[in-house]
Amino acid sequence: MATDRNSGIILGIDPGTNLMGYGLLQVEGRAVSMLAMGVLDMRKLESPYDKLERIFSRVLSLIEEFAPDVLAIEAPFMGKNVQSMLKLGRAQGVAIAAAAYKGIPIQEYKPLEIKMAITGNGVASKEQVAAMLQRFLRLKDDELPDKLDATDALGAAYCYYLRMNRPQASHPVKSWKEFAEKNKGRIHGK
Amino acid sequence: MATDRNSGIILGIDPGTNLMGYGLLQVEGRAVSMLAMGVLDMRKLESPYDKLERIFSRVLSLIEEFAPDVLAIEAPFMGKNVQSMLKLGRAQGVAIAAAAYKGIPIQEYKPLEIKMAITGNGVASKEQVAAMLQRFLRLKDDELPDKLDATDALGAAYCYYLRMNRPQASHPVKSWKEFAEKNKGRIHGK
Repeated sequence: MATDRNSGIILGIDPGTNLMGYGLLQVEGRAVSMLAMGVLDMRKLESPYDKLERIFSRVLSLIEEFAPDVLAIEAPFMGKNVQSMLKLGRAQGVAIAAAAYKGIPIQEYKPLEIKMAITGNGVASKEQVAAMLQRFLRLKDDELPDKLDATDALGAAYCYYLRMNRPQASHPVKSWKEFAEKNKGRIHGK
Repeated sequence: MATDRNSGIILGIDPGTNLMGYGLLQVEGRAVSMLAMGVLDMRKLESPYDKLERIFSRVLSLIEEFAPDVLAIEAPFMGKNVQSMLKLGRAQGVAIAAAAYKGIPIQEYKPLEIKMAITGNGVASKEQVAAMLQRFLRLKDDELPDKLDATDALGAAYCYYLRMNRPQASHPVKSWKEFAEKNKGRIHGK
């Protein structure tokens, strides 16, 4: 568990119905490094319920393995199709439930916010986000998974890190300690 | 656990962002009775994440208390508002994840299907569904919660019971045994 003002572990999740990206960052003061990243591939599962179970179990096992201090999650892009919004909502809700069940605070970011924070451009491509993260975190080419869902997830975690260190009016918290205190009443630990 | 061909417990859930209804039915052959029903009221919770955590925990505790053989869940009505579909998807996904996590098979019904199965009218009101359920299950007035979300949830469970005993082409399973066998590969028990 993090005890220092600005040390801790951030779990980033980019939830989807077929692919879920995840990325973990370790923060020590102003230093940040990538702990783990990857993609949960659910394309071979036929049942939507199996997919949701898989998302839940993976987020739970990531929490158990890395004991993150916060979940940074990418909010779905608001499309026009109600059927796909329902499916995306399901996938996102399951990832959030796993974190909430384990008493982990949750911070949600819109895709535009993450892109803006990392590249300075709210309509940057996923490849541009990945390239910036590779530079910031000094990732080798073979450390980057094929799927951009993983870098998207790492981007959510990195967005949290940036806002923690460079507080902005739009960001609700400035430090782990403040975050934990602010959320004391609203987090139901298990 | 159910061992007879047509005996077991059905958990019905009507998920929502502010109120979640639940109802449990005990089936013994063709006899059916209400075990428990109620409403989880989340209106006083400000954080949407707390609401999702509350849904997860309640579904989990209902499963632990009653050991249902199946979850019958009402699918959200497809509205036009993408924002509300996302929220409903989250709530529904969390309830589904809790059942899938515990290895409980899931059967989803559209609101129209439930109304049709219980009242014979796909556009019946919630009050009409509640009145039919009260008659079928010989419920006393003081057994009915104020909120119709509870009878809606019981309706989902009752819909499962009806289709189990009167197999229709549209229903995927005819008995618990067949259900369990059919879903053997797709349920990931914990």
